[in-house]
Amino acid sequence: MKKLIVGQSGGPTSVINGSLAGVYYEAKKKGFKVYGMVNGIEGFLQENIIDLDDYFLDKNNLELLKRTPSSFLGTCRFKLGKAEEHEDTYEKIFEILDKHSINSFIYIGGNDSMDTVENLSDYAASHKKKQNFIGVPKTIDNDLPITDHCPGFGSACKYIATTMREIIQDNSCYGDTKPTVAVVEIMGRHAGWLTAAAALAKDDTCPGVDAIYLPEVAFDIDNFVKETEELLKKKSNIVIAVSEGIRTEDRRFVCELLDTNLQTDAFGHKELVGCADALGRILRDRLGIKARPITLSTLQRAASHLVSKTDYNEAYHCGMKGSELAYKNKSGYMVIMNRISTNPYKIKYESYNDIHKIANIEKKVPNEWIDTKNNYVTQDLINYIKPLIQGEVKQIMKDGLPQHITKKEN
Amino acid sequence: MKKLIVGQSGGPTSVINGSLAGVYYEAKKKGFKVYGMVNGIEGFLQENIIDLDDYFLDKNNLELLKRTPSSFLGTCRFKLGKAEEHEDTYEKIFEILDKHSINSFIYIGGNDSMDTVENLSDYAASHKKKQNFIGVPKTIDNDLPITDHCPGFGSACKYIATTMREIIQDNSCYGDTKPTVAVVEIMGRHAGWLTAAAALAKDDTCPGVDAIYLPEVAFDIDNFVKETEELLKKKSNIVIAVSEGIRTEDRRFVCELLDTNLQTDAFGHKELVGCADALGRILRDRLGIKARPITLSTLQRAASHLVSKTDYNEAYHCGMKGSELAYKNKSGYMVIMNRISTNPYKIKYESYNDIHKIANIEKKVPNEWIDTKNNYVTQDLINYIKPLIQGEVKQIMKDGLPQHITKKEN
Repeated sequence: MKKLIVGQSGGPTSVINGSLAGVYYEAKKKGFKVYGMVNGIEGFLQENIIDLDDYFLDKNNLELLKRTPSSFLGTCRFKLGKAEEHEDTYEKIFEILDKHSINSFIYIGGNDSMDTVENLSDYAASHKKKQNFIGVPKTIDNDLPITDHCPGFGSACKYIATTMREIIQDNSCYGDTKPTVAVVEIMGRHAGWLTAAAALAKDDTCPGVDAIYLPEVAFDIDNFVKETEELLKKKSNIVIAVSEGIRTEDRRFVCELLDTNLQTDAFGHKELVGCADALGRILRDRLGIKARPITLSTLQRAASHLVSKTDYNEAYHCGMKGSELAYKNKSGYMVIMNRISTNPYKIKYESYNDIHKIANIEKKVPNEWIDTKNNYVTQDLINYIKPLIQGEVKQIMKDGLPQHITKKEN
Repeated sequence: MKKLIVGQSGGPTSVINGSLAGVYYEAKKKGFKVYGMVNGIEGFLQENIIDLDDYFLDKNNLELLKRTPSSFLGTCRFKLGKAEEHEDTYEKIFEILDKHSINSFIYIGGNDSMDTVENLSDYAASHKKKQNFIGVPKTIDNDLPITDHCPGFGSACKYIATTMREIIQDNSCYGDTKPTVAVVEIMGRHAGWLTAAAALAKDDTCPGVDAIYLPEVAFDIDNFVKETEELLKKKSNIVIAVSEGIRTEDRRFVCELLDTNLQTDAFGHKELVGCADALGRILRDRLGIKARPITLSTLQRAASHLVSKTDYNEAYHCGMKGSELAYKNKSGYMVIMNRISTNPYKIKYESYNDIHKIANIEKKVPNEWIDTKNNYVTQDLINYIKPLIQGEVKQIMKDGLPQHITKKEN
């Protein structure tokens, strides 16, 4: 019996477990025995491996898994490094794979995870190892190239657009009696895709957000204050969406203006918190108005109670496609979605055979999709996102709350 | 034809418009002409009055209203003051009421709003005015006395318990590879009811939050650090719920430890932001761990996409009861809910005739419902809240997003 192991890596999403469910379902159908690595490659190196049949032979659990946010298997931010410098680590990985007679390795993740798939696949090829390595995309940031978009993005967009509508209603409750500005901070370190989703709130029943600032454009604080002041001349209640990753011309994160002592993670990424806080304080000080900072934090990537059905289905199908590629003994491939048409919306699940062109490359919002005034996005960008937020998924409720599934303690 | 005017006041909730819908529906049934005051008593003093038939003769709009968060009519935080000192204002109010031949005045709000109802009702009685004044309760804080609970509270609890489950999943994604603490800040200036709702996340599929700190108890920072350190010896991933209003023994808000320059609103209430930030920094500094502050902000009072059906229905019925009291020419009454039994859950809509005992009195979490270690709540408190979060309401969706109704611009 062929054996497959699957792992999850990087920041979680509300549908990354849907991809895990898809990998499991399709791999079982193809006759694989399916293992899960706990906490990605980091746990794998400790041989922290579980038999997924222990959970998912029960179909009800598979349905719960698809509705559970975060990474069921646990995740990691572990940098494998180049093979030349870490041969021991690489050899240990293949030793563990051999010991458990594992043929296929599927990694569900974003840029950094695809780097791991690339390195392992290259090492296998150059060292005549028989295992194959497949990447399944996930990221709320939507910053992987080649694929039209990433599973996880659509649900985060649906959460943001829904929440923005609610914030806009809430923020306007004092009307003209009290000028109020809400500054909403949205995830996205270098790419503004998710922040752009704030634009979807607008329709004939909702006035929408008033400004959107993306990290693709240098952020000018004086300009921001001036633009907000101009907006306040036209209306009393303003909602502004900003990316956590906005930086001033000299490449300083706006949140560093308040807190220069940011923590960094294993990849050296600064942990960005406080950009809305900083901007709120600046507006209060300079304009003397009530400015409320709202940080969507992990809620935007974990709100499984509000996933997009389209995204939910796509995450599952990307997982299935991963197992199909593993079955065909492909290696160094990533599953991609190819958009055939936007209206009606139609995508094809395909594979891309040169993961070097994906790993570590961030797809940013193209300039032509950013408004000429650099404080909004174009209709083309709205049209691109809109199909991804369609449809709702019925939760499995008990006692008024959605049910999830949790891995047993070791 | 008798005429009734209705207003909304104080912080909004996700179901306060349900009470407005109930007032309108029942008042129309009783033969009233129904007006709305824009931005509560503050707008009323400017004669900012709208005819609610312009919106709600269309039943579809009434359904949208019930699903729209925030205050449709707009709100205010306007302190009427004592009649002795502000006779002009009081006389102006009755002048406007007379001018429009209004018989009944219904105010939907919390403590401060009941103070307005009390003052106007007393003034009417002592000055032989013929109008009657009725209060309909609303507050996510659940701090009004006499009534078993307040409309708006149950939905905020459902949002918090659901969100906590999602945060707990997200926060545990690194497992034992990385100790993580999430500190979640929940609204509630002086009363910890809403923060207590975090306890509902726990069931056989969710480990629940690890500690809950309410504003009813003096907050000891050294103790908090020690308790968190103890928790981290037992498990790697901790989620802590804290009320925005927690204060140290010397009555300083914890958020003031970082920011001593807090803004105040019209009632002199300090605007509390940053308590989770402050605690996150303290944990990072003292324990050297990753501590993520999460502030639920206005999302917890505006998340109409996730209301409790029980709360949604109760808000509507409290509104209806308000109109019934107005029809019976009662004055100085507030609608209350009387819990007949918890299992099965059964309440009766009643009225309370001495609003003096309600206005400006804050009902706090009783000591016997707080755990002896002061960092959790008892099962009795959980049992009290549980019935209030039951059931879901189908949203009216369009293009993947919930629809709301918005008042036209003047």
